[in-house]
Amino acid sequence: MTRKDVRVAVIGTGFMGRAHTNAYRKVGNFFELGHRPVLQAVCARSPGAAEAFAQKWGFASHETDWRRVIERDDIDAVDICTPNDTHREIALAAAAAGKIILCEKPLARTAAEGAEMVAAVEAAGVPNTVWYNYRRVPAVTLAKQLIDEGKLGRIYHYRAQFLQDWTISEDLPQGGAGLWRLDVGAAGSGVTGDLLAHCIDTAIWLNGGVSKVSAMTETFVKERHHNLTGKVEPVGIDDACAFLCRFDNGSLGTFESTRYARGHKALYTFEINGEHASIAWDLHDLHRLSYFDHRDESRTRGWRSIHVTDGDMPYMDKWWVPGLQIGYEHSFVHQVADFFDGLSRGEAVGPTFRDAQITQQVCEAVLASGRDGTWHDVAKD
Amino acid sequence: MTRKDVRVAVIGTGFMGRAHTNAYRKVGNFFELGHRPVLQAVCARSPGAAEAFAQKWGFASHETDWRRVIERDDIDAVDICTPNDTHREIALAAAAAGKIILCEKPLARTAAEGAEMVAAVEAAGVPNTVWYNYRRVPAVTLAKQLIDEGKLGRIYHYRAQFLQDWTISEDLPQGGAGLWRLDVGAAGSGVTGDLLAHCIDTAIWLNGGVSKVSAMTETFVKERHHNLTGKVEPVGIDDACAFLCRFDNGSLGTFESTRYARGHKALYTFEINGEHASIAWDLHDLHRLSYFDHRDESRTRGWRSIHVTDGDMPYMDKWWVPGLQIGYEHSFVHQVADFFDGLSRGEAVGPTFRDAQITQQVCEAVLASGRDGTWHDVAKD
Amino acid sequence: MTRKDVRVAVIGTGFMGRAHTNAYRKVGNFFELGHRPVLQAVCARSPGAAEAFAQKWGFASHETDWRRVIERDDIDAVDICTPNDTHREIALAAAAAGKIILCEKPLARTAAEGAEMVAAVEAAGVPNTVWYNYRRVPAVTLAKQLIDEGKLGRIYHYRAQFLQDWTISEDLPQGGAGLWRLDVGAAGSGVTGDLLAHCIDTAIWLNGGVSKVSAMTETFVKERHHNLTGKVEPVGIDDACAFLCRFDNGSLGTFESTRYARGHKALYTFEINGEHASIAWDLHDLHRLSYFDHRDESRTRGWRSIHVTDGDMPYMDKWWVPGLQIGYEHSFVHQVADFFDGLSRGEAVGPTFRDAQITQQVCEAVLASGRDGTWHDVAKD
Amino acid sequence: MTRKDVRVAVIGTGFMGRAHTNAYRKVGNFFELGHRPVLQAVCARSPGAAEAFAQKWGFASHETDWRRVIERDDIDAVDICTPNDTHREIALAAAAAGKIILCEKPLARTAAEGAEMVAAVEAAGVPNTVWYNYRRVPAVTLAKQLIDEGKLGRIYHYRAQFLQDWTISEDLPQGGAGLWRLDVGAAGSGVTGDLLAHCIDTAIWLNGGVSKVSAMTETFVKERHHNLTGKVEPVGIDDACAFLCRFDNGSLGTFESTRYARGHKALYTFEINGEHASIAWDLHDLHRLSYFDHRDESRTRGWRSIHVTDGDMPYMDKWWVPGLQIGYEHSFVHQVADFFDGLSRGEAVGPTFRDAQITQQVCEAVLASGRDGTWHDVAKD
Repeated sequence: MTRKDVRVAVIGTGFMGRAHTNAYRKVGNFFELGHRPVLQAVCARSPGAAEAFAQKWGFASHETDWRRVIERDDIDAVDICTPNDTHREIALAAAAAGKIILCEKPLARTAAEGAEMVAAVEAAGVPNTVWYNYRRVPAVTLAKQLIDEGKLGRIYHYRAQFLQDWTISEDLPQGGAGLWRLDVGAAGSGVTGDLLAHCIDTAIWLNGGVSKVSAMTETFVKERHHNLTGKVEPVGIDDACAFLCRFDNGSLGTFESTRYARGHKALYTFEINGEHASIAWDLHDLHRLSYFDHRDESRTRGWRSIHVTDGDMPYMDKWWVPGLQIGYEHSFVHQVADFFDGLSRGEAVGPTFRDAQITQQVCEAVLASGRDGTWHDVAKD
Repeated sequence: MTRKDVRVAVIGTGFMGRAHTNAYRKVGNFFELGHRPVLQAVCARSPGAAEAFAQKWGFASHETDWRRVIERDDIDAVDICTPNDTHREIALAAAAAGKIILCEKPLARTAAEGAEMVAAVEAAGVPNTVWYNYRRVPAVTLAKQLIDEGKLGRIYHYRAQFLQDWTISEDLPQGGAGLWRLDVGAAGSGVTGDLLAHCIDTAIWLNGGVSKVSAMTETFVKERHHNLTGKVEPVGIDDACAFLCRFDNGSLGTFESTRYARGHKALYTFEINGEHASIAWDLHDLHRLSYFDHRDESRTRGWRSIHVTDGDMPYMDKWWVPGLQIGYEHSFVHQVADFFDGLSRGEAVGPTFRDAQITQQVCEAVLASGRDGTWHDVAKD
Repeated sequence: MTRKDVRVAVIGTGFMGRAHTNAYRKVGNFFELGHRPVLQAVCARSPGAAEAFAQKWGFASHETDWRRVIERDDIDAVDICTPNDTHREIALAAAAAGKIILCEKPLARTAAEGAEMVAAVEAAGVPNTVWYNYRRVPAVTLAKQLIDEGKLGRIYHYRAQFLQDWTISEDLPQGGAGLWRLDVGAAGSGVTGDLLAHCIDTAIWLNGGVSKVSAMTETFVKERHHNLTGKVEPVGIDDACAFLCRFDNGSLGTFESTRYARGHKALYTFEINGEHASIAWDLHDLHRLSYFDHRDESRTRGWRSIHVTDGDMPYMDKWWVPGLQIGYEHSFVHQVADFFDGLSRGEAVGPTFRDAQITQQVCEAVLASGRDGTWHDVAKD
Repeated sequence: MTRKDVRVAVIGTGFMGRAHTNAYRKVGNFFELGHRPVLQAVCARSPGAAEAFAQKWGFASHETDWRRVIERDDIDAVDICTPNDTHREIALAAAAAGKIILCEKPLARTAAEGAEMVAAVEAAGVPNTVWYNYRRVPAVTLAKQLIDEGKLGRIYHYRAQFLQDWTISEDLPQGGAGLWRLDVGAAGSGVTGDLLAHCIDTAIWLNGGVSKVSAMTETFVKERHHNLTGKVEPVGIDDACAFLCRFDNGSLGTFESTRYARGHKALYTFEINGEHASIAWDLHDLHRLSYFDHRDESRTRGWRSIHVTDGDMPYMDKWWVPGLQIGYEHSFVHQVADFFDGLSRGEAVGPTFRDAQITQQVCEAVLASGRDGTWHDVAKD
């Protein structure tokens, strides 16, 4: 196999910049790939931060202006790890320059922005993906396999939660580094775009499209100091959001997210109830899948706690030995592996921008329903 | 202490007739009561069933017509354990006859029926209660104590589920003994009145009133053989119901119930997230309470699994020793103990008919919202 | 079916007197029995206690001298619920008088005492049983069924623990009511006879005989105030005991018990590892059985948590409905049901005195090994 | 800070070769180190394997003879990742050559071998460590902190298990790549050196020295095909081993390991019971620590499940954000970080060869006791 180097530029050196870079650096040690990522450039607004990051992670170069990155001929792929309000502009420029694009989720702040981005990458014909990484936690991928094999039968219920507790203090400011998620201008929305978007992406992947939604949103802390303006400003994001929905396959969905649930740091959970079997998973114990099969003999029937570490589990033949778990960061490695393998095969690998736009449309309907209290059909562009 | 005998007549010998009778028979062995229940009469439509039940449980007499029970002078209290469509008529007659009334939940099929019943018992001035027994599971009572002591602080979220899986088969008929819960004429509604009513009663007790709701209901199996008509008939009940709500205290609620969740037999769960602490409980492990206190030292902070068996736990000084759990049936014993103690003290003990009518009003709003898809204010009579 | 009344006298009104009496009183409400217990007499040394207990539980009479009980012609069965140092004497007298005997565990303080008791009941030909009640927790009975059906295949490992934490304080006295378990004269031994005896009884029932043992015992608190002598006295019991053993079937056993394990109140656990499957159970969640079957398809293989409440589970058709758990006290009801059913069938129902003596012999070997530090063969009388 | 490169040669490219190499490659991305590992050479007997490994992981060179590695002047540190029967010879040579030595556990096949190795590194004055990596799982390190702070008080009990199920099939051969652990010549012992050694290392670290032991060992499958001789040969290792022990601090220990426990792949568990608090952990959910504090208010007292992901947990400020777990491989990264930090500070960092030799002495006593059935004092060299 001849390997082809794909020179990657990572834009943004925050939490996601680190998570993605770690994945690029590590993927080749564990996966055999035809196309392999090369850490060509990293971009941060602060020259010092860019240089330090480049040195720590082994990037060949660093930049302070993302436009400069896109101009460079020695960059094949652009990874957008910056706040949501920059996704559209960078993606449009990168597509115009013919770059491969990997964009952190959510795709955009709004469905309108997302639509432009989908149009741009599809017009340019560039490979693209959005980092809904939880699809590639092995236990979640296993859930997908079991569903696709028909083990659950007709689906009746899908429920998901993403619970955090980090914004309960009224003293927490909004805006700026690390806190842009509280600033509606930068983030577009609160828990809906940040957390429920993950739940929706997984749900659509596992259970198909969402047809209509009815939501309730709340902002518990109405005003916070804004780090960028220096003043107390209204909080524009949703602190909490719950919605009911109907899927295209006739099943019922309930979704909830909040940053005001004491005791939960990043508790993404889902459960799916089918005619024959049910599945449940949560992010706090991401290496396990719970499975209940009603066709088991009645006296030994029970929820099975599957420790997803054996070699026949998705991705797990690449790692250690049975019983030894992997963690959060590996989901990114898997996404890199699959995406680059898709490049070798010349095939799109989900979630593409188009896939992510479907999630965006659900978020849009949820937020609209949260505002007006009525059921909203989900737009299907 | 002089004991006063309260001569009880149990109407209905189904599952609830057994559960209540067991409680009456057992309460005096474990609780010191000023008023004590005497098993005076049991009533079932079939003479053989009535006699057999009387003999098995030690009732002094048996009847086949509930009207006859109410006419009897030697009956002080009437316990209504019959299907929902009979609650109103029996309760009205019993109130008119000046009997103490204990009524199985839900209070009635509709809020209109419930309103008549509340008016009747209050006009008659008779002690009354509705068997929302889960309040008196020790772990749930402990939750109430912790909340009332302010341990949770401001409440942000309340969520509850009641999940079952016993009606998935399309071959299951509706109507008649054991299956009247599927017959809308007998039951009034499906999971809303049968299961969510429990969740709502507990929620109001723990978290205060519900102001508005938005619901989604579904009947997955549209037609079933009807045991009473002998024909395939439309199914009028809700097989599943989920709703969003806002509580009077500003917290957000999410509720869901279904009989189509594989792997769950009677999984009633609730979780409450407050500013300082959170609480969670479920019926499948009813002797445990989960508690998270954010004020714990950070390095040893975690969800605590409290095994509610020690003598300083609610009701538990009456039973065995630490580590030895009680079960489902004991919640009824506790309700009998508290209600009869209330008789001795001359005080009403909740849930009264009036308390249960508040739950009925929430159910009414939920079902209406399920039909028209809009938010409904909860009537506060 | 003609019912035959069996007039029972309960000797001892402590914790076990209550637990057994509750079982006698309740069994007929849930089980159809040919022989049924009648609460004929209760015996306590204090006349007040005896009378109060009789009144509370509905005994026809009360006594203060157990010898008087045995003399009475209207007593068919004697239930020994007194401290261990009285078992032998009462049992011998009761056997001589031809009474049915139910004896609280352990059978005796020593194997020598036990041997006399076995000889006595067998010579007298009276039905007899010892209250190793945990065999009849439905989850444990289910384990027995699964093993007997061969689901586990060859057994490699058996491990059991019984962990408590109630004697850690040095201020706790020994001796007298409620504390006789700390007094070696009354109890015979500490955790070995009190707790490990339970583990051993279950183990022999599930996994067959024990051939040899090697033990370690410890008394952490060497002296305690003695309530009977009024002085600080040496503590003669074992506070903790762990032992290794080999079963007759070639499997290895590890057993441990202590009253110095913070966080555990009555945590009896066992786990059995077989060639094909494994089973685990614990008393703190007694209504669940954990089961792992290696023959399950590899990707969905995991420990199953079986909620033992369905009607096809052992004993559970007699109680409530799926999902609603029973508790500790029900194990006694089941033992009464089975023992009295054995009377109707004219068959011995284990654990008999002879069965309990096998456990006694293991305890004897364990204590001897704890003293001299060598492996001891278990005597097989 | 001036960084000093430490040129590492990894000898052995099996499972541990990969795990260690991953740690060297990754540590600098997450930890700030004064001394940093450089992947200078890798050694495997097969030239093709050595080259492929070097290429995949980015080693500067590769070798096929470990002696050649030690001769090279451009190697500062040697990491021994080969089977146990080679540890002594390589370590002695590396010490003689003045190399820093990192040796996979167990230190050696026997205490005699280990003693030579300790003498060699101490005579040479070279920094040294043994890869008992579980000390550096954050939850285990947290346990150490809590114990050292005195939170548990006097310790009564320590128990540990390491349960696997991968050698149950009689068809599994012994010897050669991947199966040398079944070959007593290569491994020295079975579960004792492979698995219990981990348990003992942690135990000594957390609870101090072991004074005496009494063990039971078993080889369930007596003969297996040997891959090196091509014949069916007796199995010389222990398939299972359980032992009782006494610690220097007066606490009692129970340890068990087996490869015949269906349902457990790598279930290393420990639990420690102290006067005030208890701690429990297991490897299958390595990111959690269970903690029970008896000093908690009684009504909210329970086992706490601590999700060890917050930034104030050991090592966790280096990784992601609260709620996002790390996995098995990170324990090696932490050991590299600590060991190299020790180089910068000029201080030994445990477990050193001397620390590992203490574990070796316990293993030696355990195996001897397993042979003769008596209690053995643990040698303290």
